[in-house]
Amino acid sequence: MNEPLLMNGQEVSKAIKAKLEGDVATLRNQGVIPKLVTVLVGDDLSSHTYVRMKANACERIGIVSEQVLLPTETSTTDLIQTIQRLNEDNSVHGILLQHPVPSHIDERLAFDTITLSKDVDGVTSQGFGSTAFQLNAYPCCTPAAIMKMLDYYDIDVEGKHAVVIGRSPILGKPVSMMLLNRHATVTVSHSKTERLGDIVQQADIVVAAVGKPNFVQGEWLKPGAIVLDAGYNKGNVGDCDYETCYQQASAITPVPGGVGPVTIAILLRNTVIAAQNLTR
Amino acid sequence: MNEPLLMNGQEVSKAIKAKLEGDVATLRNQGVIPKLVTVLVGDDLSSHTYVRMKANACERIGIVSEQVLLPTETSTTDLIQTIQRLNEDNSVHGILLQHPVPSHIDERLAFDTITLSKDVDGVTSQGFGSTAFQLNAYPCCTPAAIMKMLDYYDIDVEGKHAVVIGRSPILGKPVSMMLLNRHATVTVSHSKTERLGDIVQQADIVVAAVGKPNFVQGEWLKPGAIVLDAGYNKGNVGDCDYETCYQQASAITPVPGGVGPVTIAILLRNTVIAAQNLTR
Repeated sequence: MNEPLLMNGQEVSKAIKAKLEGDVATLRNQGVIPKLVTVLVGDDLSSHTYVRMKANACERIGIVSEQVLLPTETSTTDLIQTIQRLNEDNSVHGILLQHPVPSHIDERLAFDTITLSKDVDGVTSQGFGSTAFQLNAYPCCTPAAIMKMLDYYDIDVEGKHAVVIGRSPILGKPVSMMLLNRHATVTVSHSKTERLGDIVQQADIVVAAVGKPNFVQGEWLKPGAIVLDAGYNKGNVGDCDYETCYQQASAITPVPGGVGPVTIAILLRNTVIAAQNLTR
Repeated sequence: MNEPLLMNGQEVSKAIKAKLEGDVATLRNQGVIPKLVTVLVGDDLSSHTYVRMKANACERIGIVSEQVLLPTETSTTDLIQTIQRLNEDNSVHGILLQHPVPSHIDERLAFDTITLSKDVDGVTSQGFGSTAFQLNAYPCCTPAAIMKMLDYYDIDVEGKHAVVIGRSPILGKPVSMMLLNRHATVTVSHSKTERLGDIVQQADIVVAAVGKPNFVQGEWLKPGAIVLDAGYNKGNVGDCDYETCYQQASAITPVPGGVGPVTIAILLRNTVIAAQNLTR
């Protein structure tokens, strides 16, 4: 095999942000300061890191970023009240509840409290339904980043067989719907899937969204498969065994520097669009 | 092959309705008369037949059924106002907009006007999102009927490979999510799928939801496959070529008398539950 195309998330992210800087400048000239509020419950270290990365990315392109930090013992009711307050605050254009919240909180109820017009992270069930039906909603960020990667590198998915590994509400399910809407044949696999290797073997496009380090093996891949790794596990490794997948793939996203940076760029883009829409 | 198990929709439907009759009696004793309103736009003959069948099924178990018949030239705005009026009418527990509406109407917008608590046909994008995320919503009736068939005949889908042919918002997409939530590995195929026969060949469970008469060929099937035919085409034929599929399948739904009657029973069930929920 030749060397695979390396799908560079930094480059894709940079292209998205370059356009956004102009949009933010226009908004600010109109007196609108786009604002994203991130709600973080508890003191999970990775979550704090993610939130800081997102805040820095916002500030760099002129989006105001605020954090609401709530203690681990916050109740579902309190969290919901916080989100409702942000729903009603006209200075706020986007609301992001950092996943995961402590296990005693009903995360789904909290997500679904976010009003659709500020759901820039694309986590509500209404947002999912709207995305699946190709209606107007902010697409869930990581799935949208995966689609953006494919578009940026001119990879047409129509008629291709995509195998998604994982079925979570904020990754496997929405990316499956997005690929389906772009006319891929889509197989959704997960922990109960039998003979996963045989399933993956058929894929023209593999999306790994399973949350297990180095899980997808190169020997599972059809030679020339396109591999998108949405995993980000401890030790900076993805869901795909990069060394062996690299040998088989015709295109692959590295971890880090692949889907991750594009996810943040999509969040910024959704926030800017929300600011444009909410001030129209 | 042995003769396949014939999944009898009349029998399954009867079992569902038997339970509902008791529920309706209880509601009526409490002074609640469950009511389904069907909105029908235009004069498509098949649609009129379906609506009449649904109305008769309602009346037989004590659900009041009303039809709102609107002329073909009805505008989207007028249809939406009609639905909004029904949303606000406390005597109405379920609203069904008969698909398809004339092409000048924005059907999706009309569907999504139905309030979630009365969406007993399970057609709203919010209902779809809620179903996909296993939240509280009335499941879309035909997909739910397919799942009910599997349950009634004790067919466990966990770990099985299901191939859904079709990706419509009221059939292919929701049934895919339901099968996925029951731990099947799910492949969604459609008109752009390449080598469909090879894809179907892998299926332990085939759901035909494509709307093309006698489309699925017996030779595509793995011997022993379970075949659910949600198609209902002119001439009383399904989406599967029944003769040849019958030779290969271990279980199969006939058309007519398969998924169709169960779909109506699910509609009745959803309406009764809506009446229970709305009067609590």
